[in-house]
Amino acid sequence: MFSGAQVSLYPMSDDFVGIIFGAIGALDPWRDHLRIQTDSLSTLIVGSPEFVFPAMRDLFCAAAYSGVHTTMHATVSRGCPGEPDDPICSPVSSPRREMALADRVAAYREIVAAAPQLEQDIAAQFSLYPLGVGHHMDEIYGCIEFLKSSGTFDRSKNFCTALRGDAGPVFETLGQAFTGFGSEAGHLAMDVTVSANSPSVR
Amino acid sequence: MFSGAQVSLYPMSDDFVGIIFGAIGALDPWRDHLRIQTDSLSTLIVGSPEFVFPAMRDLFCAAAYSGVHTTMHATVSRGCPGEPDDPICSPVSSPRREMALADRVAAYREIVAAAPQLEQDIAAQFSLYPLGVGHHMDEIYGCIEFLKSSGTFDRSKNFCTALRGDAGPVFETLGQAFTGFGSEAGHLAMDVTVSANSPSVR
Repeated sequence: MFSGAQVSLYPMSDDFVGIIFGAIGALDPWRDHLRIQTDSLSTLIVGSPEFVFPAMRDLFCAAAYSGVHTTMHATVSRGCPGEPDDPICSPVSSPRREMALADRVAAYREIVAAAPQLEQDIAAQFSLYPLGVGHHMDEIYGCIEFLKSSGTFDRSKNFCTALRGDAGPVFETLGQAFTGFGSEAGHLAMDVTVSANSPSVR
Repeated sequence: MFSGAQVSLYPMSDDFVGIIFGAIGALDPWRDHLRIQTDSLSTLIVGSPEFVFPAMRDLFCAAAYSGVHTTMHATVSRGCPGEPDDPICSPVSSPRREMALADRVAAYREIVAAAPQLEQDIAAQFSLYPLGVGHHMDEIYGCIEFLKSSGTFDRSKNFCTALRGDAGPVFETLGQAFTGFGSEAGHLAMDVTVSANSPSVR
């Protein structure tokens, strides 16, 4: 399995460089579990989704705490054929995958409810792409049921789903949606944008 | 067919609101062909890809001409099952689809070579997701061959492909990659980020 994300942070400020550099330290607690590499367009974070999502959450919150209108975009992927297996991407085994779909939905919902509160309201929108064969439609419908009952669901939009709430449960919802459904070894991609401090919603 | 994009513009400036409002006028020449609707996260542009891509190009360039480091993200989609057919999305018929794959690649390359020069250097990275059944792998390989010979190819990255060059040919490459390959009526999504005036590449 190979998994990770291409992540870009966008503080809408003249001091965007300072805010980005100031936020990067928030990745430090996660670095043992991740391989991180930056270019001029994005930062590649390679690792298991259970570390990639909280790392993105902490990076985004560190920038958003500045109060500046900040967005972050990530292209998240797992199981892409053609990418080499990488031990750093091995997920910690989840006993929940043995459970029936309805029970898994309930379990994921409890995980979201128990997520830490980070005192940062955010909005998010994302698209989830099950690629290749092997993703059963029941799993997709289960994911939709989970999202709508997650407590972070905002609304369905064309081409994507919007979430809102505290960064803790919102990122937990994204992570559970990404890891909890579809073929466990199948190719899955997520296109996600998060936003904080937007003047449009004040 | 239903097609369009969720588009977000991110000028990294204290004056991001002014730059965004200043750029929106660049959509005016395209409005007859598009349905446009904005919320706090993104602007929905519904229409045929042959209008959506140049509209995004002109919107982005209008903001980038400010000289401010600006990025734009779009989630582009066509053929999503569950979305209603919409006459505004009907593509102008393309005789090229009757041609052999190799001849189409050559034709698309010529279209990119003839694209207008907009005097704005940009970098782009994108992922193309052929969804559901019916996208033949030969078409995907043809798209890769087209990209590598497009004159705008920068490099392959994990999870995405990077392009660079003038905004004219780069957006033309994105548009041809999106419309020219895969099943004509199939579900295809693109996750694309473009960037201009980055201090990282000065």
